[in-house]
Amino acid sequence: MKFMLLIAHGSRKQAANDEIAALAERVQAIAGDGYDAVLPAFLELAEPDIHQAIENCARQGAVEIVAVPYFLAAGNHVARDIPGELECARAGHPGIRIEMAPYVGGHEAMADVVLRCAQQGG
Amino acid sequence: MKFMLLIAHGSRKQAANDEIAALAERVQAIAGDGYDAVLPAFLELAEPDIHQAIENCARQGAVEIVAVPYFLAAGNHVARDIPGELECARAGHPGIRIEMAPYVGGHEAMADVVLRCAQQGG
Repeated sequence: MKFMLLIAHGSRKQAANDEIAALAERVQAIAGDGYDAVLPAFLELAEPDIHQAIENCARQGAVEIVAVPYFLAAGNHVARDIPGELECARAGHPGIRIEMAPYVGGHEAMADVVLRCAQQGG
Repeated sequence: MKFMLLIAHGSRKQAANDEIAALAERVQAIAGDGYDAVLPAFLELAEPDIHQAIENCARQGAVEIVAVPYFLAAGNHVARDIPGELECARAGHPGIRIEMAPYVGGHEAMADVVLRCAQQGG
C-alpha cells in the first residue's frame, strides 16, 4: 500500500482545511493507480496532524508514504518542522518507507499556474 | 503597457521574498509578449508593497494591471486585504484598468503540481 500525504499548514478556518481535503481528492482522482490513497495532513491548527495521519496509513497497511508539503516558500516549516515530524514517524514505523517530496511552491510548473491565473483574471 | 503583479504575503526572510522575485521573472519569461513586465509585490513585511508596486507601474505608463494573489487558500488576505488595496489603487489611478485574478491555490492545475512533486520525491 502506497499513500500520499498532502501536508498543509492548517488553519483556524475550517473552509481552508476543507480546501486541502478537496484538493487531496482531486490529486487522487488524477493519480490513477499510483497511490492507494491521497490524504490531507496538517502541521498545526487542524486534524489529522502528521503523526495521526501516518498512524492512519500504518493501520491501513502502508509500506510507503510520500509526503508533499503544500507550502509556497521554503521557510522553517518546510526546512525543519515537516522533516522533523517525518523523522519521528520513521523511528516509530521502521517498516514504512517515508519520503518527503519537494514543496509545491518550488516546482517549475508554478510559473505556468501563475500565468494561467493571470489569463483568467485580466 | 500591461503589467502583471505577483502578490505574495511577504516574509521577514529575504530568501522567501527573493523566491517570489525569481518566480516573477520566470513567469515573464514564459508569458512572451502578453505582459510588458511581471513584477513582485508584497502584502506586508517586504517591499515593494502593493501601493508602491502600482505607483511603479503607473510611472512606467501602465494602462492595465493584472494582480495574481500568490496564496494557497482563500483566507482574509485573498478575500479582503488584496481587494481592498486594489480598490484603493483604482481610486488613485482611474486611468489604469486594475484587475484581480484568481488566487493560485484555487487553480485546477494545482492537483497536477502536487502529483508531480510527489513523483519527484517518492
